[in-house]
Amino acid sequence: MLTKEQITDWFKSLQDDICQQLTAADGGGSFREDLWQREGGGGGRSRIFHGQVIEKGGVNFSAVHGELPDKIKESLKVEAGLFYATGVSIVLHTHNPFVPIIHMNVRYFEMPDKWWFGGGIDLTPHYINKEEASAFHQKLKASCDKHHPSHYPIFKNWADDYFYIKHRQETRGVGGIFFDHLNDKDGTTKEQRFEFVKEIGNTFCPIYLPLMADNKNKAFTAENKKWQLLRRSRYVEFNLVWDRGTRFGLDTNGRTESILMSMPPDAKWVYDFQVKKGSEEEKTQELLKKGVEWA
Amino acid sequence: MLTKEQITDWFKSLQDDICQQLTAADGGGSFREDLWQREGGGGGRSRIFHGQVIEKGGVNFSAVHGELPDKIKESLKVEAGLFYATGVSIVLHTHNPFVPIIHMNVRYFEMPDKWWFGGGIDLTPHYINKEEASAFHQKLKASCDKHHPSHYPIFKNWADDYFYIKHRQETRGVGGIFFDHLNDKDGTTKEQRFEFVKEIGNTFCPIYLPLMADNKNKAFTAENKKWQLLRRSRYVEFNLVWDRGTRFGLDTNGRTESILMSMPPDAKWVYDFQVKKGSEEEKTQELLKKGVEWA
Repeated sequence: MLTKEQITDWFKSLQDDICQQLTAADGGGSFREDLWQREGGGGGRSRIFHGQVIEKGGVNFSAVHGELPDKIKESLKVEAGLFYATGVSIVLHTHNPFVPIIHMNVRYFEMPDKWWFGGGIDLTPHYINKEEASAFHQKLKASCDKHHPSHYPIFKNWADDYFYIKHRQETRGVGGIFFDHLNDKDGTTKEQRFEFVKEIGNTFCPIYLPLMADNKNKAFTAENKKWQLLRRSRYVEFNLVWDRGTRFGLDTNGRTESILMSMPPDAKWVYDFQVKKGSEEEKTQELLKKGVEWA
Repeated sequence: MLTKEQITDWFKSLQDDICQQLTAADGGGSFREDLWQREGGGGGRSRIFHGQVIEKGGVNFSAVHGELPDKIKESLKVEAGLFYATGVSIVLHTHNPFVPIIHMNVRYFEMPDKWWFGGGIDLTPHYINKEEASAFHQKLKASCDKHHPSHYPIFKNWADDYFYIKHRQETRGVGGIFFDHLNDKDGTTKEQRFEFVKEIGNTFCPIYLPLMADNKNKAFTAENKKWQLLRRSRYVEFNLVWDRGTRFGLDTNGRTESILMSMPPDAKWVYDFQVKKGSEEEKTQELLKKGVEWA
């Protein structure tokens, strides 16, 4: 039987692997590691990167346990109980506006009488390159299809709904996949669920490293940079207003610096900014919507 | 009997007066006005300023009405009902890091069987100048004391609690006053409540214009500017994560650009930023706590 220790160890090894691959791909930086303990139980290792391609990146592992905070008990509709939660979270912001922002999370949650996996990967290009967006979704679909034909369509729509900036009526980027509460109630075994989550975790580097390599040396203008900062402010708005993971962390007195490693290095707000007719910025903005069949 | 139309008209005139005084004090810009309508009823006039001293400022008036959104009904514990809400909201971000960010809000809310006033003023210096913080609180206290001796102590503590960035365990700035649900249940008349709110509204310019004038020409370094951008990111965090007014607006499909006029023009996030020992930044950081008796 698969234990939480085995899952935890695998997440740690995934963090190690991704950090090593990103360091090699960037070629101009190294990870700073902060080990931290959580007062209620457990802790984590946060790793932050500043490099040549990646301006600010976080690759975090954590494994926390203890009594569930009241707020979470209410939302999970449980009376009491010990929990164990472990996972890896990644957000990367790059110098070059033509390299997309990427986010990945894989996680496992356990209580005495239940367990589930969750996670997702989504891509936020400052400028949407349709070929890249399609390739990104095709790779995710291929990974999902190995496990169940309905995974990709369901998790793709879930990502469209989840990574949505409601007050802007736009998606955070071109989406990806999002899944939660994957358990064995439909007959799928825990081992099978874990194999799927491992597949997604291992998809991160093959998906992102080419996006770094292909775009890191593209020339960009001051206008491209300004647009990048405007897109980053939307990233901030999504994470602080709508992202349940961020709010869960802040509500439960998580380690603030680790939770907010997802914040961009800088961001810009312009009142009522309007893209120019026919511009690349306009083309991107028009694609920030749900339901685009990228794959 | 004081009507909602009279209150609304006074809020409009307050917006006009403050815009005119800020324009004169800045000397290098003019307000852009956007009139907007709310789908459910009512609308507003948003005014945005970019000037010589004020980098990005918003002075908004709105008067909206209709059926309360479900989410608000729950939080107000009412079953159904028409509401009317009007007010003025101000946030000013300045170029010079030695000029503080200021926020003011005065508002009136009415339902068929109840009404109340709310509001507040709070100051967020990038660098806390103790004399200025004391003068700010003394002026607020003087305005409050004209109406009731317990106003200032109660509303000052309320501001300490309200303008608190819980996940950072620090206050947004040096606080000020915050009040809500001021009605006639303790025997105070509606006219008296309104006189108090007018007093606060009229206190804005005498309080803030000297802070602009005294600090706008101070020399500053790149380090001062960086610190300003870091403080601005905390402002963003407070507004998007904790400010009930902002969340109310975003939850009820308010006009996003008007709600988020409070966002700074730009902001910076540095992972685990540490102030230097003995620096001015450290002195400010140490004063970002509740319970300082500034007056």
